[in-house]
Amino acid sequence: MDIKTFNGDFFIPSNAKTAFVLVIATTDVSLIPGITVAGATPELTHFTPAADAEFLIKGKCFVINTVPVTPTGIPTPAIISRASLELVKIPKFVVNAGSRVKPNLPFIDLGGEPGKDIRRGSMERETADRLIKNGITLGEELSNAFDFLIIGESIPAGTTTAMAVLVGLGYDALDKVSSASPENPKDLKRRVVLEAIKDLPSELLLKLAKLSDPMLLGVAGIALGFKGKIMLAGGTQMTAAAAIIKEFDKEKLKNIVIGTTKWIINDPSSDILSLAKDIGIPILAAWLDFSNSRFEGLKVYERGYVKEGVGAGGSSIYAISKGYTATQILQKVEEIYESITK
Amino acid sequence: MDIKTFNGDFFIPSNAKTAFVLVIATTDVSLIPGITVAGATPELTHFTPAADAEFLIKGKCFVINTVPVTPTGIPTPAIISRASLELVKIPKFVVNAGSRVKPNLPFIDLGGEPGKDIRRGSMERETADRLIKNGITLGEELSNAFDFLIIGESIPAGTTTAMAVLVGLGYDALDKVSSASPENPKDLKRRVVLEAIKDLPSELLLKLAKLSDPMLLGVAGIALGFKGKIMLAGGTQMTAAAAIIKEFDKEKLKNIVIGTTKWIINDPSSDILSLAKDIGIPILAAWLDFSNSRFEGLKVYERGYVKEGVGAGGSSIYAISKGYTATQILQKVEEIYESITK
Repeated sequence: MDIKTFNGDFFIPSNAKTAFVLVIATTDVSLIPGITVAGATPELTHFTPAADAEFLIKGKCFVINTVPVTPTGIPTPAIISRASLELVKIPKFVVNAGSRVKPNLPFIDLGGEPGKDIRRGSMERETADRLIKNGITLGEELSNAFDFLIIGESIPAGTTTAMAVLVGLGYDALDKVSSASPENPKDLKRRVVLEAIKDLPSELLLKLAKLSDPMLLGVAGIALGFKGKIMLAGGTQMTAAAAIIKEFDKEKLKNIVIGTTKWIINDPSSDILSLAKDIGIPILAAWLDFSNSRFEGLKVYERGYVKEGVGAGGSSIYAISKGYTATQILQKVEEIYESITK
Repeated sequence: MDIKTFNGDFFIPSNAKTAFVLVIATTDVSLIPGITVAGATPELTHFTPAADAEFLIKGKCFVINTVPVTPTGIPTPAIISRASLELVKIPKFVVNAGSRVKPNLPFIDLGGEPGKDIRRGSMERETADRLIKNGITLGEELSNAFDFLIIGESIPAGTTTAMAVLVGLGYDALDKVSSASPENPKDLKRRVVLEAIKDLPSELLLKLAKLSDPMLLGVAGIALGFKGKIMLAGGTQMTAAAAIIKEFDKEKLKNIVIGTTKWIINDPSSDILSLAKDIGIPILAAWLDFSNSRFEGLKVYERGYVKEGVGAGGSSIYAISKGYTATQILQKVEEIYESITK
């Protein structure tokens, strides 16, 4: 099977009623020049989560004219998620944890707010509390319909806030988070995080309000409320979500796995395996191979561009667990890629 | 069985994966003194939908200190919906079609806006269009998880906007809609509707933007997008939702039933049976009997107070279809009633 397992076993429940949840948010950290390539310009990063959600659900974007691209024009990993979820046809829910731009779609609102620049500002404690609590309520409600939840994310600069959370919670995480660029701007991220963790409050919720982005709190809340098994579908950011979950309920981790891509596992600039090990959570990775793709914009994944996002890894893993091969997924991705680039 | 059928047959699919959707909204029509009792004062009616949603999901209200009550203190029919849905344990989704007050809960937002006073203002055409389109998208997405949808509503003064829509679409509906009060303020409703339908645009969407409330458009959209069977859970308002659905897709009505209460069927001040017959839609009614209740606030249902709302009839019908009796539902309702009044 085109899935590899790391750091312990996790079995995707067979015949489980499954849903995909995409949690979107923005943080003003993404406006720091050079910190993220999840948008053609820093300002456009605030449109990326809404556009990703629109592309995932409707196959086209409304808040911007095209799909989200990097400054060099490489399209969003949402094309992989959409391809995989078209194969398996499970319900998809968009959850807004705090995005500056709202998608033109029905979405579930958690009552959050867009994240601030963590060097200077902090979320209100009550906003963080509301995000977690509303997330729990949503997770509980989804438990009445589903046994297995795949939770993806879209938030530009989310690896920086993830690193801040991990460091703030005491993990050895400096320089270990990934990037959508092959040139991970580690010095910049480190400077932002070190500035953010100065004078950190000791209370957990205040700490999270200061360091976290809204997506991580929404994801943690949903996972805490959900009664079945959960795949956190993302890269190093999802180790921060798992770390937050662990702070609230250590036992919960038994039902949780991170589902990501080969490109995150193989990323020399980050270390998801050591992060996951420190937290105590297994990882599944979709062993996709885009090296023989007809499209340059997909081939570059093999050179470390994009890597993951919008639950690309987790949705691929789910499609593979349902009998599709990595090759079939690539074919579907190419079909979608062709339709958006012509 | 404690369900009666009118105007044709409808079979609740057995073993269907079922969800309950509560669509909430407000209209400034509810601020017209005397038009509705769905709130202790006209101003408080704007809190009722959010509070109903909170009570349904969490068993308590946050936007107001107590459950919504009529000016004489009779509590919301949400207690019946909560009782029935506690028995059958299906997932519940709150959908905001345009409510002035938002619930402190995760809810699905359709991108609508609170409704205006239909005598003076109109919704923007594009808002009406967005509500229908986002509703369709949501319905389509829910089809990936569910075979049967129960759609309830909470919107004070919704019977007046329902009458306006029905009259505007050419139905003989004047004076035929119900009320949460045993003294249906028919003259006032008639005056409001006759003023609203003056100089009515001929295009369907503009007509609906002028006369409809956001809830009806949201419900119609969800139903239009959903692929399985649907129960519109409400009183005479749901005939207006069905009439809107019929304008867009006549065939769709084959999969739709209205699910309501005995108190709506027996209401001498309204005529749901003739409305449903004109539209061509069957009705199921939960034959609940509160006459021997221990609580005066429930006994008054038998004298025409409250009657229906928040999907009370439809959720009771669903519970009955799963083997619970009307007596068991009353017991559960009394349990909840006792907990909120002590």
